[in-house]
Amino acid sequence: MQDAVQMSLGEVHAAAEAALLGQGFNRAHAAAIANTVTAAEQDECRHHGLFRLPFYMNGLHSGQASPDAEPTIKELAPGIMKVDAKYGFSPLALERGDEPLAAKAREHGIAALAVNNALNVAALWPEVERLADRGLVGFAFVAASPYVAPAGGTKPLFGTNPMAFAWPRHNKPPLVFDQASSASARGEIQLRLRDGKTLPEGWAIGPDGEPTTDPAQALAGAQLPFGGFKGSNIAMMVELLAGPLLGDALSFEAGERDKANTGAPCGGELIIAIDPIRCMENGDRIAQLDHGEMLFKKMLEQDGARLPSDRRYEARKRTAIEGVKVPRSLYESIQSYITGTRIKERNAYEGDHLTHQKETGLNAVAV
Amino acid sequence: MQDAVQMSLGEVHAAAEAALLGQGFNRAHAAAIANTVTAAEQDECRHHGLFRLPFYMNGLHSGQASPDAEPTIKELAPGIMKVDAKYGFSPLALERGDEPLAAKAREHGIAALAVNNALNVAALWPEVERLADRGLVGFAFVAASPYVAPAGGTKPLFGTNPMAFAWPRHNKPPLVFDQASSASARGEIQLRLRDGKTLPEGWAIGPDGEPTTDPAQALAGAQLPFGGFKGSNIAMMVELLAGPLLGDALSFEAGERDKANTGAPCGGELIIAIDPIRCMENGDRIAQLDHGEMLFKKMLEQDGARLPSDRRYEARKRTAIEGVKVPRSLYESIQSYITGTRIKERNAYEGDHLTHQKETGLNAVAV
Repeated sequence: MQDAVQMSLGEVHAAAEAALLGQGFNRAHAAAIANTVTAAEQDECRHHGLFRLPFYMNGLHSGQASPDAEPTIKELAPGIMKVDAKYGFSPLALERGDEPLAAKAREHGIAALAVNNALNVAALWPEVERLADRGLVGFAFVAASPYVAPAGGTKPLFGTNPMAFAWPRHNKPPLVFDQASSASARGEIQLRLRDGKTLPEGWAIGPDGEPTTDPAQALAGAQLPFGGFKGSNIAMMVELLAGPLLGDALSFEAGERDKANTGAPCGGELIIAIDPIRCMENGDRIAQLDHGEMLFKKMLEQDGARLPSDRRYEARKRTAIEGVKVPRSLYESIQSYITGTRIKERNAYEGDHLTHQKETGLNAVAV
Repeated sequence: MQDAVQMSLGEVHAAAEAALLGQGFNRAHAAAIANTVTAAEQDECRHHGLFRLPFYMNGLHSGQASPDAEPTIKELAPGIMKVDAKYGFSPLALERGDEPLAAKAREHGIAALAVNNALNVAALWPEVERLADRGLVGFAFVAASPYVAPAGGTKPLFGTNPMAFAWPRHNKPPLVFDQASSASARGEIQLRLRDGKTLPEGWAIGPDGEPTTDPAQALAGAQLPFGGFKGSNIAMMVELLAGPLLGDALSFEAGERDKANTGAPCGGELIIAIDPIRCMENGDRIAQLDHGEMLFKKMLEQDGARLPSDRRYEARKRTAIEGVKVPRSLYESIQSYITGTRIKERNAYEGDHLTHQKETGLNAVAV
């Protein structure tokens, strides 16, 4: 790794918060975004960590993101809560909606949270992990900028449209997956462009609609869904759940509305929570979760199989003790955010972004 | 096609019902199973049509399926209904649970139906289509016999674990997908074995855990999930939702319990229904559905892209007028069911199954 600065997770949080405050976010937003950024650094998903700060700053400086929107919460139906982010970034709205959603799920067995008008550049696992930490099953669905062609199609239409799922475990952190419905992260294609590498087949099509392994053609064309038409169906489902179901934007609409091309699309997010003990007669949380463990045990008995969140949890143990290494150039940019030096974040960071990805070998689970 | 018998959909239903009655199912089960079988023939998904009758008969004659279980319905929580199929086949339980689930969803905005102790060999689209016909969004998840290895693993563990989703459309039949989380239908592998063909890469591994394109090795080994670890995550999610969440069986448990190897595993099914108009302030069903149409329109503007249920609906228009063609051997077997001649169904039908698949070119969406 290039020259790097060692930071504890506390220092990461403090730096992120100070940077966000320095650029104009209010305390509530700065704290919530810093929580999300720190959660990603903690799990060594650096793509969603400090490296993401420029996206937040871009959204703010473009005027598209509110620095101080106060999310409002409302009950739409006995099982449905709504949180209106009012064009702020999603982390604060998600934190505010978490407990009301969990309470509804405990009361009714199943409940949903409709998040509206939220700028979203974060991973989804924090919101579903929070639910599972309370013993609930969680799902999250969010649309994004239009980069992905439907299976069989030729042009971008869907977002990378992540879907996240969390299952609680007894005395262990939850089982969580958070996966884009595109075959690859967009950043991975950008990386290969920079490095003069080709793409694996199945990742993308060019502007002519034909399969391509050329990263430049891919970026000018469209990414492909994972797993062919089945992954495309998942992407389509996510569009419907995060958009029309909630009265919010489809990916192509969010893309059109992102006039400043900040990469921070504004739209909806659907979160569903289910309380396992309400899903069977005489529900017994520990017995039900132990039953789930039988599946995980059988999975782990197979060489090569792994639980989707284990890598993150291993990192989490490590970073709690060792902290994280932050590339010096990123660290210095954060300092300039803190002191309020306004920089042209996006261009300044494009290079760091790719260097950082390459060095860490990490891709966003969901971009 | 081999010598075939032309039947109207009414004749299909009458023949299926008579066959089921002739073999010992009571009127309620015979009618419900006949509805499911006819729905599949109507959509030219013949794999789930009359061709499936032997699976129902196997389940019955093995003593594993009840001929006359009366499903019971109970409210587990304000948003959760349970229907206990009591070891009957799923269609009757699903029909009985449909309206109570829909009523809950309308009242609370979101609701779930836990189906327990149901033998399931049917596709899932009928239950979610019914919900969408009422203007609701529907999801269904069911585990199955253990045939699929987790991504990176070497042995069968997951079922083919289908997941279905339905979105209502204004003045049109709903958009529905119903897809296995395995890369291919099991029957397709059996077909290729019979025909001496190899498999595409990515479908299966042999008993040694290594990738194989040999159908015999694949059947002795394990099928693979669609889309690598992401599809594997979906399969795992379905296991948890249909099993431990509902206090019902994981696929490997259902496999162990299917002592007679009927291919009709007994387990749970989770169905979720959401009422779109409760998911936004001043919800307007037609406006929300019209918004969804904007996505579908954009999809269909792309050459090669299609909506997942369109092929079935085209067939549905056709079969309403023309009826369906049923292979004579299958037709004659149905007659022998009707007259009560007990035959060793499974072995007798294995050949028909494969011939039928080959002639129609159809695979089950979800096996």
